[in-house]
Amino acid sequence: MMRTNEQLEELANNICDFIREQVENADAKGVVVGLSGGIDSALVAYLSVMALGKNRVFGVIMPEKNSNPDDEKYGKLVAESLGIEYDVFDITPVLVAFGAGGYVEGKEFDKRVDSNLKPRIRMTEVYYHANKKNYLVAGTSNKSEIYMGYGTKYGDLGSDFLTIGNLFKTEVRQLAGYVGVPKEIIDKAPSAGLWEGQTDEDELGISYETLDKLLNLMEKGKEIDDICEFLSIPPEKVGELMLRISTNKHKSLPLPMP
Amino acid sequence: MMRTNEQLEELANNICDFIREQVENADAKGVVVGLSGGIDSALVAYLSVMALGKNRVFGVIMPEKNSNPDDEKYGKLVAESLGIEYDVFDITPVLVAFGAGGYVEGKEFDKRVDSNLKPRIRMTEVYYHANKKNYLVAGTSNKSEIYMGYGTKYGDLGSDFLTIGNLFKTEVRQLAGYVGVPKEIIDKAPSAGLWEGQTDEDELGISYETLDKLLNLMEKGKEIDDICEFLSIPPEKVGELMLRISTNKHKSLPLPMP
Repeated sequence: MMRTNEQLEELANNICDFIREQVENADAKGVVVGLSGGIDSALVAYLSVMALGKNRVFGVIMPEKNSNPDDEKYGKLVAESLGIEYDVFDITPVLVAFGAGGYVEGKEFDKRVDSNLKPRIRMTEVYYHANKKNYLVAGTSNKSEIYMGYGTKYGDLGSDFLTIGNLFKTEVRQLAGYVGVPKEIIDKAPSAGLWEGQTDEDELGISYETLDKLLNLMEKGKEIDDICEFLSIPPEKVGELMLRISTNKHKSLPLPMP
Repeated sequence: MMRTNEQLEELANNICDFIREQVENADAKGVVVGLSGGIDSALVAYLSVMALGKNRVFGVIMPEKNSNPDDEKYGKLVAESLGIEYDVFDITPVLVAFGAGGYVEGKEFDKRVDSNLKPRIRMTEVYYHANKKNYLVAGTSNKSEIYMGYGTKYGDLGSDFLTIGNLFKTEVRQLAGYVGVPKEIIDKAPSAGLWEGQTDEDELGISYETLDKLLNLMEKGKEIDDICEFLSIPPEKVGELMLRISTNKHKSLPLPMP
């Protein structure tokens, strides 16, 4: 899925047109981007500035006491490279007010419960700025993450549009390089930052490179057997990923009604 | 749209089947309902207990320092009438931690900005319990509210399914009476409780009775002129409501992608 510079230019232009269209249709004045320090939100911020200009893009950086200090550093690097206005909001006091495990005395951090709190708190803060400024919230989830269910419903998946929801992670890397996202952000290991040392690829047990090839073949309607053979992945691994995809599908579908 | 008892029984049964199906399909153990003290969440709690039994339904009551004390009282009345487990969580400290206007010194309450914070905080708390218990979140929005845009995206509209999303407000009232929701809850004026003294009908400038008739005729494809004549509403009012419907449509559509 390597693309030429011409293709990347066209892709960037299409996404910029889309961003402008979304903002205009909603009678909004700009977009807010939650800057995690990762490549996805960096790319979204870069594309938003290309689409709207730096005065109509606002960044929100939301560290907490257990987050990697690099995340804040890289978030600021994005905002300052682009020259956009931004705010730093430490979500620790909110986690404490919610009584989150690991943040209040005598309550241990519980992966499933407490790690989902953080993206929901961040979504709430990002919308606080969006409501204040009459801006839209630009989503930062990519296609590979959406398939894998990396993303908390009504947390980081909660936005007004999915700016890069049609790009695989490997395409995000290419486009980020093309639009000038700082190299140190492009090169670090992808992590949802939900607990210390977490990386997506460790957890998936497969590289994004291979995963994206697999998803691409799946989208093209290839049979599982062919996918396994073509990518030399054991069928159990493919089965496990397919199950993961179907379990997480509900996160991007309209809500069921009786 | 008055329904006979037989029709109400069938309606209740259909919704109960749907709730059970949702819980089973997700391999979940039950449902969490945020109890606002209003008729919608009361009806959802009653239907959930009918569907799953009282041991698989959990209520969350979330007052704050400026909310009407009656809301908490009625929320408890629902939980206690049904005999379900529930938790009371005062969201004031979370509002303070977010620096909400009206909750921190020297910052005035801003309707648009601060009132949207509350439902998002409540959604986060409801999902905290849902994640802890492996329960789903039963949504409490009704069809009239969804059309009117009463509901905060990723706030009270954030749930795993829309339990009563196919019922007009007037149908909610009928069904609530049929399943035994306490009369004092059915009879009070509908309010989103976003600021003091707010009632939906004041804000809309039309009663739910008339609104639901209008929405029903609209769904049946009737022309605006006919609707105005049939309901004796001035065309400007109908136009205003139609605009409101189209502006709020995005809240229930899948997120746009380039």
